[in-house]
Amino acid sequence: MEYYDPRDYDLAGRIARLKTRHGVIETPYLFPVVNPLRQQPSIEKLYELGFNAFITNAYLFYRRNKGEIRNIHEALGWNHVIMTDSGGYQILVYGSVEIDNKTIVEYEKKIGVDIGVILDIPTGTRMSWGEAREAVFETYKRAVEALPLIMDSDQLWVLPIQGSPYKDLLIYSSIKAWTLPYHIHALGSPTVLLEKYDYEKIVELTAIARIHLPPHKPLHVFGVGHPMIIPFLVALGADLFDSASYILYARDNRYMTETGTKRLEELQYLPCNCPVCSRYSVKELLEMPRYKRIELLALHNLYMLKKELNNTKQAIKEGRLWEYLEYKSKAHPSLRKAFNILKKYLEYIKKYNPATKGTTLALLLNDSDSLINPRLSLTKENTKEYILKKYRGKQILLLPAIEKPFNQEKTYLRTKKQYKGYEILFYHPFLGVFPPQLSNTYPFFQHEVGVINENVIENLVNELKKVILEINPEKIVLVKIGMKPYDDIIDELLKDKNLVSTYTLDVLSLSA
Amino acid sequence: MEYYDPRDYDLAGRIARLKTRHGVIETPYLFPVVNPLRQQPSIEKLYELGFNAFITNAYLFYRRNKGEIRNIHEALGWNHVIMTDSGGYQILVYGSVEIDNKTIVEYEKKIGVDIGVILDIPTGTRMSWGEAREAVFETYKRAVEALPLIMDSDQLWVLPIQGSPYKDLLIYSSIKAWTLPYHIHALGSPTVLLEKYDYEKIVELTAIARIHLPPHKPLHVFGVGHPMIIPFLVALGADLFDSASYILYARDNRYMTETGTKRLEELQYLPCNCPVCSRYSVKELLEMPRYKRIELLALHNLYMLKKELNNTKQAIKEGRLWEYLEYKSKAHPSLRKAFNILKKYLEYIKKYNPATKGTTLALLLNDSDSLINPRLSLTKENTKEYILKKYRGKQILLLPAIEKPFNQEKTYLRTKKQYKGYEILFYHPFLGVFPPQLSNTYPFFQHEVGVINENVIENLVNELKKVILEINPEKIVLVKIGMKPYDDIIDELLKDKNLVSTYTLDVLSLSA
Repeated sequence: MEYYDPRDYDLAGRIARLKTRHGVIETPYLFPVVNPLRQQPSIEKLYELGFNAFITNAYLFYRRNKGEIRNIHEALGWNHVIMTDSGGYQILVYGSVEIDNKTIVEYEKKIGVDIGVILDIPTGTRMSWGEAREAVFETYKRAVEALPLIMDSDQLWVLPIQGSPYKDLLIYSSIKAWTLPYHIHALGSPTVLLEKYDYEKIVELTAIARIHLPPHKPLHVFGVGHPMIIPFLVALGADLFDSASYILYARDNRYMTETGTKRLEELQYLPCNCPVCSRYSVKELLEMPRYKRIELLALHNLYMLKKELNNTKQAIKEGRLWEYLEYKSKAHPSLRKAFNILKKYLEYIKKYNPATKGTTLALLLNDSDSLINPRLSLTKENTKEYILKKYRGKQILLLPAIEKPFNQEKTYLRTKKQYKGYEILFYHPFLGVFPPQLSNTYPFFQHEVGVINENVIENLVNELKKVILEINPEKIVLVKIGMKPYDDIIDELLKDKNLVSTYTLDVLSLSA
Repeated sequence: MEYYDPRDYDLAGRIARLKTRHGVIETPYLFPVVNPLRQQPSIEKLYELGFNAFITNAYLFYRRNKGEIRNIHEALGWNHVIMTDSGGYQILVYGSVEIDNKTIVEYEKKIGVDIGVILDIPTGTRMSWGEAREAVFETYKRAVEALPLIMDSDQLWVLPIQGSPYKDLLIYSSIKAWTLPYHIHALGSPTVLLEKYDYEKIVELTAIARIHLPPHKPLHVFGVGHPMIIPFLVALGADLFDSASYILYARDNRYMTETGTKRLEELQYLPCNCPVCSRYSVKELLEMPRYKRIELLALHNLYMLKKELNNTKQAIKEGRLWEYLEYKSKAHPSLRKAFNILKKYLEYIKKYNPATKGTTLALLLNDSDSLINPRLSLTKENTKEYILKKYRGKQILLLPAIEKPFNQEKTYLRTKKQYKGYEILFYHPFLGVFPPQLSNTYPFFQHEVGVINENVIENLVNELKKVILEINPEKIVLVKIGMKPYDDIIDELLKDKNLVSTYTLDVLSLSA
């Protein structure tokens, strides 16, 4: 797929180059919705802020020009990428439009948009299951109908995926997409969910669509435009977003923050350092003429969105997208719930998470959330495989891994000398069981440990029991070093009758 | 204390006006360290960024002017607040200075600084306990010595609190401070801890000092200048900070982020939207002349610090400083450890946390971290007191609180009609036990719930058992509503033999 070229991966997220006739978009990307009649801030300003592509409405352009074909780039004075929606949004809002699918698709083609959308039937949120099924069928029929008209163009064409919130329909719509040669898939409108902060649902719907769609094609999510949720969807494999929120919010004095949306009147300090917030105070913004305030709030909102895209991309580059989601998840209960939903899709995320990375920054292990970091669990799975291959049935000595580098630690070196017939294995609250020879590799050396709480300990004890049973050692020596919580862990193991009765077991006490 | 006027409170943190001869500083505040010989960015630029006070070094000023008395505001061309350090930092670095306490204090007085520091002996981090004790004694002696020289001035004078990292000495130094009429206390230099990301220790030392110092005087923490840690110290009651980190980091291509410090070369995207980061790319910054890059990185770092102060102040205004700390704690394992240390000081924090607030935004209940939110636990303590007063010995019916407003909920209204002789009490995973009449008050109506995990449930079960035992009801009815996790909670209660055997107990099943 030469139009879509992913170069960096983390979790199921990716940074890619999306090639269009008017230049390359680096994804993840958000298309600001542009209204050609009353655009604020100006499109020049959008470009200055780093947005080299916007989305506008081909249906409205058609109506304004009474069907006359005009080059949209010339008409709007924008020599960069233009994506157009087809009127589907108007169907969602007004129930119907005065145009048919063929007409608008041919029109999009002729006015020279870079990315076009067929006229789909959005399912929205109020449709019954039966109505939603009809919308899915009709959208698919139109996608088939449009194909002969557009596939000779060098434009990119978008197939909307409908059916949400009905999961079966969403899956059906996603699977049917495999049969059609569209360039981009776009998940139908979760705008209402966004307004209600129902991020849990959006995360779930995006995951379901992404899992069932062709993985090598980019996924757009319609109407998503808040910094709170973008990285969660990117982590699941969403690439593109579009939104008018920056200006709609601004008209209503609503101010985006990383942790929520505030009304300007609610703020005493601006919790942001963008050029707008660095220059003006809340009071100054409230006292200026409305038109100017809208302009400035819209700019602030755009700066926030740009920052979120940058943060997300930087996290992907660092292989720390999971850590970033852990952090974001604490910004608001609705995000915490969204994070919780991710747990259901860990196997999918792990499948796409690259095992190795160019940049391998230290793994940040905060607390029990970090135990399910796919980067960590992939490491542990590989290590376990290695251990079972090399250590099964041998004489094992288990030693806690406390100070890096673990294989240079005094206790280890002494024990190694004394227990020559034994294979020493380390155990670590987060990293689990691993052989000393991995001590200087990633992430056994490159990690930072936060809080070892009860959940972390409990998880470790369970892992240790499992690994011991699978290794099935000839003999096993557990070591008490006179330090909490490590000695408690040994005590927990000794409570397991299965373990104690199955193996010849010694407890070595270094503290005595 | 008319020079220090706190107006907003949250946790043990406060927003206050600190009055000096050259104007008011709004605390929490960070004094950028200014080097009069080679200051970059210029002090005009600092003012433009919103810093109306800086700290510079009176000892260096003395040396440069060969002891000649010059008005420091005129000499530096700054008509706003100036704080001066005394040479204590030089003692810390070089072991001694060529000046005595009396001389430098009189000099600070005469050059007209707004806030002056006596010549203390910083304990630093390498001193033995005995040496540190000497440093504490000597600092106190000098504080006594300086008093007659300065107490007739209208300047603010700072008493350094030394002894750290030795807790007993720190406590001693803090308690001795009660005997001296200094305006501001300043905790001795945790700079080394900062460099090592050892936030756990800094949080602990600040808590110990603050708890033992006079609460009505502001506390400065020397050398703290990173956005990661500032809100944690503010939450414990620290008011003032100073740091040269913005420029020292910049000279070394180090770039502050909310979640850590990055080397510019490590970044592919700038995860910030300050005026510098909105205008330049990583590549552009790396390719420009070194002097210009330093200037821009220093500005970025200052924008980050300003933003952090704003975020912290806004959180205090909203009564959401705890929520903000929960969020920050997930930025890095070292902050997660710092957050964990806060648990030790909850009683102290609760003592200062105001029971009522002007702005009462919804309480954000993310997960088990939120259970120890002092705002929540204060509410629960008051509610429990009320319940014990009104409901002890009565016939109780326990109902889960699921949908807000709880006292308008159908199940409640129906149960109320049916069970006339019973007092209905609600229970809620986070809010605990409360009577229906509180349903529309803060935070029983104003809260958002995130993830109800095992820890939350376990905590609730324990709370319920305790409350039931204390209410000591004549009869108790538990209600199963056919919904997880509420029915499991009832099952857990029924496992408690003490509870089952003590009371006449009915289980009402609405789902049957």
